[in-house]
Parts: sequence; C-alpha cells; structure tokens
Amino acid sequence: MRLALGVEYDGGGFSGWQRLSQAGALEADGSLQTALEIALSKVAAAPIDTVCSGRTDAGVHARCQVVHFDTDATRDARGWVLGVTANLPPTMAARWCVPVADDFNARFSARARRYRYRILNRSARPGLERQYLGWERMPLDAEAMHEAAQALRGERDFSAFRSAQCQATHARRNLQHISVARFGDEVVVEVQANAFLHHMVRNIVGSLLVVGRGERPREWIAELLEGRDRTVAGPTAPSAGLLFLGPKYPSHWNLPHEVCADE
Amino acid sequence: MRLALGVEYDGGGFSGWQRLSQAGALEADGSLQTALEIALSKVAAAPIDTVCSGRTDAGVHARCQVVHFDTDATRDARGWVLGVTANLPPTMAARWCVPVADDFNARFSARARRYRYRILNRSARPGLERQYLGWERMPLDAEAMHEAAQALRGERDFSAFRSAQCQATHARRNLQHISVARFGDEVVVEVQANAFLHHMVRNIVGSLLVVGRGERPREWIAELLEGRDRTVAGPTAPSAGLLFLGPKYPSHWNLPHEVCADE
Repeated sequence: MRLALGVEYDGGGFSGWQRLSQAGALEADGSLQTALEIALSKVAAAPIDTVCSGRTDAGVHARCQVVHFDTDATRDARGWVLGVTANLPPTMAARWCVPVADDFNARFSARARRYRYRILNRSARPGLERQYLGWERMPLDAEAMHEAAQALRGERDFSAFRSAQCQATHARRNLQHISVARFGDEVVVEVQANAFLHHMVRNIVGSLLVVGRGERPREWIAELLEGRDRTVAGPTAPSAGLLFLGPKYPSHWNLPHEVCADE
Repeated sequence: MRLALGVEYDGGGFSGWQRLSQAGALEADGSLQTALEIALSKVAAAPIDTVCSGRTDAGVHARCQVVHFDTDATRDARGWVLGVTANLPPTMAARWCVPVADDFNARFSARARRYRYRILNRSARPGLERQYLGWERMPLDAEAMHEAAQALRGERDFSAFRSAQCQATHARRNLQHISVARFGDEVVVEVQANAFLHHMVRNIVGSLLVVGRGERPREWIAELLEGRDRTVAGPTAPSAGLLFLGPKYPSHWNLPHEVCADE
C-alpha cells in the first residue's frame, strides 16, 4: 500500500532534507529524511524508505513537504499522523496522511513547487522570528524587484541562478509565478516553478536584492538570465528566510487541497 | 534627556521582562529588562534604568515593547538603535528610538496595550513556528469564541481572569477590543485594553478554548466575568502563543505610527 504524507519542519537544526547515512539505518544523522524515516519505521514496525517532492537545503524550512512510501502496516490516517508526529523531533510534525494509487510518486507526479522568502528590511537585525527571516539593512524598492523578477517567467535556462554543486542534467525550468511585495518592514518574494535547481530561489533572491538596493537597474535580472553566468549574479541569500510552501499535484491524485494544482 | 525606545523580542529564552537582580547590576540575570539595560548602559557609557509599557511573563514575545529612559549621552536615533541592538542577545532587537518630552512615561502615558494569541488547531502538535504557537487538538468553533468574547468588552471587573499572584490594587480594566478569527488551521485571538492584569490574556484565552471546544455554551464567558471567581475559569493558556503587539499612546507624544492610538 502506498501512502502520501505531508510534513512541516523548522529546518534550523538540520543538515537539510537528504539522508546522510546508509538507507535503512535507524540512527539520527542530522537530516530531516532520516528523522522522518525513523519515525515512520517505528509506527510501521518495519523499515520505511521515503521519496520527497523536493529536497531542501540545510536551514530551509517547509510548510508542507510531501513524501510517499510503501508499507504493509494498516493504520488509519489519524493513526499515522499522530504516531509519526509523536516520534519526530519537536521541530518536525506530520500534517496529514492519505492513501494514494501505486503509480503516485511524490517527486515525479508534482507539477510545481512553491517557495516563499521573507526579508526583514530595516537598519537593525531581526530579534523576533529571526529563525524565519533574511535581513537587508538598506531600503529596498520592492516594486523594482517585482518588475525585474517578471523577466524570469516562462520556460528558461536558469544557469545564472544554479549553484556550482547543482547535479541537474540541464538548467531549463518553467517559472510559473514570481512576485515581490512589501508588508510593513518585510519584503516577501514568492516563486513557483515546475522544479528548481540547487540554490535557485536563494540565488534569484540574492540578485533581486541587488536591484532592490538600486545598485543595478531592473533590466539587470533579464541580462543575468540571458548571460547564463552564475559568477556575475548576486550572492546566495541566507537559508533562514526560505520556506518551502509545498508541491502542487494534479487534482486526480485526490491529495489535500493545500497541495492541489489549480486546474 | 528622555528617550523612548521600541524593542522586539522572542521571550522563549528569558525569565520574563522584570529585572531579577539589583537595579544597575550589569550582569545578565535571564530577564529581558536587564539584557536591555546592559545594552543601553554600554551605548551610553553610564548606568541606565528603564520603565516599560507593560511587563511580559516568561516565554511571552513582543513585537513592540516600549521603554523610556533618561540619559546625558548624545547620539542620534540610528546610533541608539544600532548600538543597542549590537549589544543585545540575538533574540532581542531595537526597532526605533526617539526623543520625548520629560513628562512622557512609557507606563503611565500608555492609553492601551494590545496582544495577539495564536492557536494551532489540528490533531498534531506544531513543528514549524512552535515557539510562537499555542495548540489545541480538538476542533475549535472560532465564531462561538468570538461571540462569547464580546461579553468582556467595556469597563469590567476581571477578577475571574487574574492570577493568584496578581499585585494590582483593583481588577477593573477597560477592554476595548477582542476578536477571534480562523485563518486555515490557525485560530487567532486579538485583545486590547487600557491595561491588563497578571495572566489576564492567557486566562481569557484558556476560557475561550473551553467554549471553542463546545464544552461550555457561549454565555459561560459572561457568567465567569460576573462570578469574579478565578477558580472556575479555564486553565491559563501556554506562554508561547502570546505576542505583545505593543502599547498605544496619544498622538501628541509624536511616537512612531505603530504605537499611536487611533485618535
């Protein structure tokens, strides 16, 4: 039987999603994946491997990461959610669990992933909520950032915004939505694409900050994209500000509303 | 010269606002007040005492606590904000600093204080943002809570919602606003009064939760208020969910917009 599970986490104390130890090893290794698989294996009373919708880096948070796994254990949805949460570290919790068709795949069935990046924009560093905020001390022109960002929409080669460690076979991604908006002293970037390259959101944010500070004109983002050269783009924005809102799946998979694509 | 300073903090690692050690002692004692006075004294190069708009308990956060203090040190607003923040623990930060008239008093000049309480309402405990959330596993009727809460508005005797340790000379307070609203799986209570008794917000929230779970009818809140008996009200809600949004002052004090009363 195949199940899909929604999980949220504060990535601050973890090495990132990806398991660092051997598959099936039931000792914490600092990764979110291992912490989740240990909890699932306890509930199932058998080793469980998971496949996630998208790996997150060290320090990146998730509102709704989605994994699928196969198991013979028979428990209802509530039993899985409560059992798994009881066995997770305090900064991770299961949101929901639903049975899915055998051909559902948390990674390959996803049509989109959505991220949010929060930037506190004031002279003093954050105190409250600092775990969840990037910080820019120079005044940002959020409107300029928003306008500049629109050049990234569509099916593009994002080589300018991928990290040197990125292992993807090609850099083409379809960026479906990007917005930058100010809420008081916070500037929030939201971006959705079919998939993302390694560090792609944080590299985009880092370059948008250069435009927001007025150091480069709005057209610079389009030029960076065109140039496909990572070395001339802005620095990678810090992980703390980044939240993986979650993936989007076609509605025929009957997943909870929060991960359903609008179609 | 008298200055007013806005400060935000994550109360999680502190014993509460109030100084535990002798006034002027420049060693951290786990309180927010002492941490702030140490930072101010370093910037002023002289001992600084502060008066705050309202003490917060252990574990309670603040978006904008306000203090006033007197000093001979001459620095501009930006110098105070950056200097103080640089000397504060990482979970505290100054928001702004402005000169005020000598008769301004952060406590006595305030006309109102506003608090927000966030409750995660789902079967599994919080993972993400758990530092800032209360948690209720039973489904809450936010509308019933909102309606019940309206009985608390006006000039009332809040003996039913004050802690046994409360040192106020009387229990009459003017509750100007209270609302309960649901945002997805979060239920948010916002409450504003001229002043609050010890544990008053958390005791009100604790009793509203009893109504929200359907264990008592909406009229129960009015009955509790009328009865003035703390022992029959709901339990005190946990500190983590509580955020002191800040005080409100008459506009003639020329304080930043976020702490100005609407008048």
